[in-house]
Amino acid sequence: MEITFLLSALCGVVAIVFALYLASMISRQDAGNDRMKEIAGYIHDGAMAFLKAEYQYLAVFIVAVTAILFVIGWQTSISFVLGALFSIAAGYFGMQVATKANVRTANAAKSGMKQALKIAFSGGAVMGMAVVGLGILGLALLYLAFDGKVTYLTGFSLGASSIALFARVGGGIYTKAADVGADLVGKVEAGIPEDDPRNPAVIADNVGDNVGDVAGMGADLFESYVGSIVSALTLGVVLLGKNGAIFPMLLASVGIIGAIIGITISNSSKEDNPQSALNLGTYIAGGATLIAAFVLSATIFGDMKAAFAVAAGLMVGILIGKITEIYTSGDYKYVKNIAEESLSGPATNIISGLAVGMYSTLVPVIFIVVGIIVSYFIMGGAQNPTMGLYGISLAAVGMLSTTGITVAVDAYGPIADNAGGIAEMSHLPKEVRQITDKLDSVGNTTAAIGKGFAIGSAALTALALFASYAEAVKLGAINLLNPLTLVGLFVGAMLPFLFGALTMKSVGNAANDMVKEVRRQFKEIPGIMEGTGKPEYEKCVAISTKAALREMILPGVLAIVVPVALGLLLGTEALGGMIVGAVTSGVLLAIMMSNSGGAWDNAKKYIESGEHGGKGGYAHKAAVVGDTVGDPFKDTSGPSMNILIKLMTVVSLVFAPVILEYGGILLDLLAK
Amino acid sequence: MEITFLLSALCGVVAIVFALYLASMISRQDAGNDRMKEIAGYIHDGAMAFLKAEYQYLAVFIVAVTAILFVIGWQTSISFVLGALFSIAAGYFGMQVATKANVRTANAAKSGMKQALKIAFSGGAVMGMAVVGLGILGLALLYLAFDGKVTYLTGFSLGASSIALFARVGGGIYTKAADVGADLVGKVEAGIPEDDPRNPAVIADNVGDNVGDVAGMGADLFESYVGSIVSALTLGVVLLGKNGAIFPMLLASVGIIGAIIGITISNSSKEDNPQSALNLGTYIAGGATLIAAFVLSATIFGDMKAAFAVAAGLMVGILIGKITEIYTSGDYKYVKNIAEESLSGPATNIISGLAVGMYSTLVPVIFIVVGIIVSYFIMGGAQNPTMGLYGISLAAVGMLSTTGITVAVDAYGPIADNAGGIAEMSHLPKEVRQITDKLDSVGNTTAAIGKGFAIGSAALTALALFASYAEAVKLGAINLLNPLTLVGLFVGAMLPFLFGALTMKSVGNAANDMVKEVRRQFKEIPGIMEGTGKPEYEKCVAISTKAALREMILPGVLAIVVPVALGLLLGTEALGGMIVGAVTSGVLLAIMMSNSGGAWDNAKKYIESGEHGGKGGYAHKAAVVGDTVGDPFKDTSGPSMNILIKLMTVVSLVFAPVILEYGGILLDLLAK
Repeated sequence: MEITFLLSALCGVVAIVFALYLASMISRQDAGNDRMKEIAGYIHDGAMAFLKAEYQYLAVFIVAVTAILFVIGWQTSISFVLGALFSIAAGYFGMQVATKANVRTANAAKSGMKQALKIAFSGGAVMGMAVVGLGILGLALLYLAFDGKVTYLTGFSLGASSIALFARVGGGIYTKAADVGADLVGKVEAGIPEDDPRNPAVIADNVGDNVGDVAGMGADLFESYVGSIVSALTLGVVLLGKNGAIFPMLLASVGIIGAIIGITISNSSKEDNPQSALNLGTYIAGGATLIAAFVLSATIFGDMKAAFAVAAGLMVGILIGKITEIYTSGDYKYVKNIAEESLSGPATNIISGLAVGMYSTLVPVIFIVVGIIVSYFIMGGAQNPTMGLYGISLAAVGMLSTTGITVAVDAYGPIADNAGGIAEMSHLPKEVRQITDKLDSVGNTTAAIGKGFAIGSAALTALALFASYAEAVKLGAINLLNPLTLVGLFVGAMLPFLFGALTMKSVGNAANDMVKEVRRQFKEIPGIMEGTGKPEYEKCVAISTKAALREMILPGVLAIVVPVALGLLLGTEALGGMIVGAVTSGVLLAIMMSNSGGAWDNAKKYIESGEHGGKGGYAHKAAVVGDTVGDPFKDTSGPSMNILIKLMTVVSLVFAPVILEYGGILLDLLAK
Repeated sequence: MEITFLLSALCGVVAIVFALYLASMISRQDAGNDRMKEIAGYIHDGAMAFLKAEYQYLAVFIVAVTAILFVIGWQTSISFVLGALFSIAAGYFGMQVATKANVRTANAAKSGMKQALKIAFSGGAVMGMAVVGLGILGLALLYLAFDGKVTYLTGFSLGASSIALFARVGGGIYTKAADVGADLVGKVEAGIPEDDPRNPAVIADNVGDNVGDVAGMGADLFESYVGSIVSALTLGVVLLGKNGAIFPMLLASVGIIGAIIGITISNSSKEDNPQSALNLGTYIAGGATLIAAFVLSATIFGDMKAAFAVAAGLMVGILIGKITEIYTSGDYKYVKNIAEESLSGPATNIISGLAVGMYSTLVPVIFIVVGIIVSYFIMGGAQNPTMGLYGISLAAVGMLSTTGITVAVDAYGPIADNAGGIAEMSHLPKEVRQITDKLDSVGNTTAAIGKGFAIGSAALTALALFASYAEAVKLGAINLLNPLTLVGLFVGAMLPFLFGALTMKSVGNAANDMVKEVRRQFKEIPGIMEGTGKPEYEKCVAISTKAALREMILPGVLAIVVPVALGLLLGTEALGGMIVGAVTSGVLLAIMMSNSGGAWDNAKKYIESGEHGGKGGYAHKAAVVGDTVGDPFKDTSGPSMNILIKLMTVVSLVFAPVILEYGGILLDLLAK
């Protein structure tokens, strides 16, 4: 039995070794001329400065939570610390390499598209492999250390979730504060182009791509990855003994091997189109995992049911990604329609963008519910409900089994974006920038797809963890006719709205700080506009860092305190209602905000390609408004929903023993 | 026993007589000079043209639904027809009088504020009294006719809901198509002021105020009013026999008397401030009803429990109204902040407006859940859950007991708005317009409060009807751990997003038609800009009418078909989940959209009052963008959510017998 877990741990090690191999391959590449190295150095230092500041907050946070978790048991505390440290390690490693890969991608673009794509994608793959490698390694080690007592593993999931909160919410605020600040003063007021080195916020903006889109996305999917496996383990062991745990662990292990194969094939692909090369790897990884799922299912369980549940999850993940592309790419009617509406001004641009975002919730929800139904009933949920819930958690594991390559494809985007920025700031030839622009534009599409995937996986993971929660608090039913469940549901559904409001407001506050600093530098530093005075990049980096961490506190505290408080006051059933309310409304808002934002962005790009009067025309001005509104939508508030719903669910799961014993204080009073 | 229902019917008749008295008082007022009469005539004819067109659609709709309802029983069919006809009658009567009161208010403004307020408010009171009078009369008659078989009364509620769909959604599209069309071409392109008679869409715009804000709001609250009482009756009879029905009916009857007293006192108030005069009447009506609730509770049940449930609902209604004012009035920080953000342009105006809307969901949700908890537990829900649900339905009845004066205060707004338009178009002296402007501005606040109240009442009514649904399909529990419940919940939560997208899109389509027509008239009618050529107002009226009814079909069909289809496919428990999902996400979106819209509107007005550069400045231009986005938010999509959630719930309730017998087709297949 332990042998399979050792095997999983080994797969984790293989992933980490593969990541190290890719990292050393990237390091060996030429980083270009001195100017390029200088700029890349600023970005690297800025990213590390953010991490350093973040770690100071994290240290306090981890110590505090660890202490609190001792109430539940030292094993959970240990798991928590390990989950947090592993997530931090993955983020640190990924960012280190990403901030090396960016300049090397720019330099490789001198030799052509394929070479540049390989470096950027390998950079992303380091993040991807670190996520899955450390994730599975941590879970396997804890399983072995605690001798199969899987409930202790929820602490690991909580650790992952906590770091995701800092990385995704803080990172999201960081990146948009820098972006909006750089644009508002640089582009609009001073009239200098994007990525111009005279703009003091330009480095913070490029750091933001790494902080938000590499580390933030990585931590988000680390959380989903770990959460889905933990849920499958906790349900599986109760239902099927060790086999119930072996299947998801081995499946995840196979997924890692599939991802390594896919990444290798993408990297050696002869495809001219970067998108096709990336798709090829993804399909191969998915296909390999799927075949293995059937073999594992037949071997372990003696039938194909579990494999079908896995396949359902895998399909939902791919389909949500695809449909996201349709709503947010300039090749389809939705974005074209927003561009056309921009001809009547910013108001109609905004209305149609919001309408597209709201409309775009329809199909993903249908995919998700079909996935739920298939994975539940295929496992025999009609006869044994808990077995059906295990099926849902297997679907989540299935969807996330290819996380390694999904993160790779996704993190490739900001690296390519950075490469473009470095090329611009180093005045590299036009041909180089054409290549980085092409890579960047593919990166925008993969980013939209990645966001869809992250939302879908958050939904399934949270539902799977919800099933584990119900098991943990010994609820056979959570009754909607119980008004406390309704109360929980209402409060839960409201929280994503509140969270969205707070994070949007935070971006506004942080961007205001940035605007003031950029204006000050333009005014006070002599020769800055002529290129003779040197902007104080590090001051802007410091502002984004400080603001991001400051603004993250309130929403973060809410996400942790509300579930515990609600559970203690109103009991386990109300808390169950809250989780479901938060998941449903959080998923919908996340889809709406991400897709509105993506569609506005690409509507602007579509107009810039020469439609409706092109760049600088009336429609373009209107589209810029939509794009600016879309920035916090798609890069801060939308993705933060994923964290919110998973974090609240895992907090409920970890604190389940406490709530089970002491929960429902108000309820007891009311019943009298 | 029958005597109490005859008494209720009598109160209904009293309300109608009081409405007739007010109507004849208004008719006797002087309608001003020929120019005023001419313009008022256009508005009146336009409103009637909309009603006539609407009735043609309605006739087909009513015949079709009546035929389908024969499946359930002829009694339900009869109830449905009566509910539809009574709602139509209330809307027709209210609009007739409102389109007389507008011009008489303008004329009365020559003699001063108090006289003008009295006419406008009396005009609104006619709508309010028609709503409550016809509502209680219909229910009492059906109760007596069917000898206390209260399940038949659900048909009456469905009739009310169906008309509300046409009136609120169709009306909402009508009014914003006209408004946006008139503004975009008139104000922006041709540079003529608001309410200028040279604008061909100006009459349609004024008609829209009546169609959307008088008839639409009236039908919305007619639906809530009837729905809450029906729910209390169906639960009450099951639990407590006839007493369970007598209490809510008598409470509603007393509420009517309270409203009549309140209206009379408001009308004879010596208050200089119109807002204070309206508040006074509302508080008196609420206070009188509350005292009566305690007397009734003691007399009928022998204790005060039911009265406390009623008080909880009444309080929630008033508090939600109040808090709405804080988020949407220019006197408070939220609107001021949006105005300030407008200094950085339209994007920051939009972001902060959306953030305010999302943030504003927090407190109302807390009010609603506290109302649920109090009314449930006070009735002993801890011991007897169904009794607790009856408590929730009593809270809904309590909240809606003062509907008579709430609608009056709310419908007063568009009458005052119309009066201002007529004063402008008839070139009445500046002093007159100052008075109508003051009345209009108070009307904006009462409209925002009324919207909050309508949302809160929709939430409680839908929850009460949901409890009746569960009773009707014999579900003791709706289990969230059943994946079909989760599936229903997800689909239900998605529907308001879809509905919002469709209705916003509809406004866009309808406004486009209007823009084209107005442009055509400006181009083709000679002397139109000089005031010598006469605009073809009726063509614009026809376009708004046609577009509103055309665009209403798809969302309307969805609201009716989806619950039945989902119930038939996945069974009663999934449908229960769908209702709750739709109610929670619908309420949240409604609050967000209404409050964002209201806040944007008043941020613009705040700037127009001279702040941040005043009218025509940079901040003002940005604020106009927010205001335009807010138009479909607050007047079409937001209020449509109320209809959606109530209509879907009542459809589920009416079709409960069918779904109970044939539902779950897919479920049966899956279980095999």
